[in-house]
Amino acid sequence: MKLASLKKERDGRLVIVSSDLSQYVEAADYQTMQQALDHWSEAKGKLETQYQELEAQKNGKPFDPKKCASPLPRAYHIADGSAYLNHVELVRKARGAEMPPEFLHDPLMYQAVSDTILGPTDDVPVPSEEFGIDFEAEVAVITDDVPMGITPDEALSHVQLIMIMNDVSLRNLIPNELGKGFGFYQSKPPSSFSPVAVTPDELGEAWRDGKLHLPLRSIYNGKTIGQPNAGVDMQFHFGQLIAHAARTRPLGAGTIIGSGTISNHDRKAGISCFAEIRMIEKIDSGEFQTPFMKYGDKIRIEMMDQEGNSIFGAIEQEIVPYKSVSQVPERKMA
Amino acid sequence: MKLASLKKERDGRLVIVSSDLSQYVEAADYQTMQQALDHWSEAKGKLETQYQELEAQKNGKPFDPKKCASPLPRAYHIADGSAYLNHVELVRKARGAEMPPEFLHDPLMYQAVSDTILGPTDDVPVPSEEFGIDFEAEVAVITDDVPMGITPDEALSHVQLIMIMNDVSLRNLIPNELGKGFGFYQSKPPSSFSPVAVTPDELGEAWRDGKLHLPLRSIYNGKTIGQPNAGVDMQFHFGQLIAHAARTRPLGAGTIIGSGTISNHDRKAGISCFAEIRMIEKIDSGEFQTPFMKYGDKIRIEMMDQEGNSIFGAIEQEIVPYKSVSQVPERKMA
Repeated sequence: MKLASLKKERDGRLVIVSSDLSQYVEAADYQTMQQALDHWSEAKGKLETQYQELEAQKNGKPFDPKKCASPLPRAYHIADGSAYLNHVELVRKARGAEMPPEFLHDPLMYQAVSDTILGPTDDVPVPSEEFGIDFEAEVAVITDDVPMGITPDEALSHVQLIMIMNDVSLRNLIPNELGKGFGFYQSKPPSSFSPVAVTPDELGEAWRDGKLHLPLRSIYNGKTIGQPNAGVDMQFHFGQLIAHAARTRPLGAGTIIGSGTISNHDRKAGISCFAEIRMIEKIDSGEFQTPFMKYGDKIRIEMMDQEGNSIFGAIEQEIVPYKSVSQVPERKMA
Repeated sequence: MKLASLKKERDGRLVIVSSDLSQYVEAADYQTMQQALDHWSEAKGKLETQYQELEAQKNGKPFDPKKCASPLPRAYHIADGSAYLNHVELVRKARGAEMPPEFLHDPLMYQAVSDTILGPTDDVPVPSEEFGIDFEAEVAVITDDVPMGITPDEALSHVQLIMIMNDVSLRNLIPNELGKGFGFYQSKPPSSFSPVAVTPDELGEAWRDGKLHLPLRSIYNGKTIGQPNAGVDMQFHFGQLIAHAARTRPLGAGTIIGSGTISNHDRKAGISCFAEIRMIEKIDSGEFQTPFMKYGDKIRIEMMDQEGNSIFGAIEQEIVPYKSVSQVPERKMA
């Protein structure tokens, strides 16, 4: 089953999308994705019935990703992991730091902005290019209610929907924020997700062992810059990430868990963020060469199935200046 | 105006509470607090009309804080500052670290769990006493929609409701988490808020300059252990905290901003968390003496007006063991 939220008020209008992403019908019993997730044990079957009808009869309206909000236009909880340790190793190596051995068994995770999620084709407004604008291509899952203290194996049964994600990052704000010790906040502005979220069964064999075993393609200003396989070099599967999140709290229905930037040890797979190519440059040559993103730059993130069909639709966004009505206070950057 | 959410399904039932907290009526036009906040410019007047009627006629039903969920039973965004630098200084001094001078003009802030907020009299379930269970008494505000890049002065006009907060903290999990660099996550389980949220006008002269100038009382197992004034030694007022949060993102209606643990330089004011008395002990004697909280311990947090009447009702919670249906994975603690 594939689901999306058309833009409408704050929470969108839940629709069921055909597997080829060509058509949609409105969900009959649930107005919004959050409503469906709040009642997932009943909702899932009802929505699947509508999906089967749409697949059989192809009687929907034309589906246009440009009319989509994020599958969850706002969410109560986004926790983003950093499960591809190649990314973590590179970032640390470039600043001369070792990766601590406990990172192999203790996931990195932070809580991300969830009240103002960007739509999949919305512009990304940033107050200054000096902030060091970057994208991060990731896989993310949506859970139903998850009890506190769940095991990684049990946690996997709570993965109800899967999406792809652009975790927008402001690199030049990160050193100061992490230096203060409280983690990311200003350096991680609103993210975006694919137009469509899909149930695990929709992915067939590509979804196994809590990982999505397909390449995630990042296209920057029309040029493919990365297609690492999301199933390769993922140190913690989604069950482990969910269990980490739920160690001292339950997770509410509609919690989104991100994988972290997809990154393969094989450098031929390319990159899922500019920080990484810069780190490789720094390690190899001592200098950063590739700049961060600029106003007018476009990023497209998409995942194809074995037959070359888009699974989730594309995230396709342009970086644009943000002009505040207020005077944005000047701040020092590290 | 005073508002609360009675426990009902996931989002509660919005009610208007009399100023003396004795009675309530159900909100006529909005089922939930989030609905009202989503339409605040119209909702505020309608709710205030009902509040004036209740105050004049005293024709409501008896108000029982035990039936309350948090004013926002779940929220899309909680950002908690650390605006009382005495608290920050003590924590750092106890581990032999100076407070960096930029902390005087650059607020500390992290994003807190908001999908599973505890009710004001709910037990606090914790999987192990070894986690170092602590409370933190704070003031918090709820905003309507806040544009990105707003100034601190403008931000103050977006404070729509005020509450008090218990930011539950698991101290022994903090060193490992902060050491990893991504900030708090497992070490900050679900928080709770007062039964009632009030509009700023309800506080009269006590609400000025973006601060709440009244003592916040913390009572541990029946004994008052702190009553620092929330208007004293607050380095960043709520306008500054909101502007910090909104520097690179808009804030959605219903965003909660916490002040951080209330802490006065005057030690006679007592404490708003056990970490602080332990830090003072460590600084003075070289040893921690006071233990963290244990199962069965009770914490009550309340703020009185000039006449000694409870403004928000009391947060009143007991620490209880959490027994998972799963095996909670063993993890090393720093």
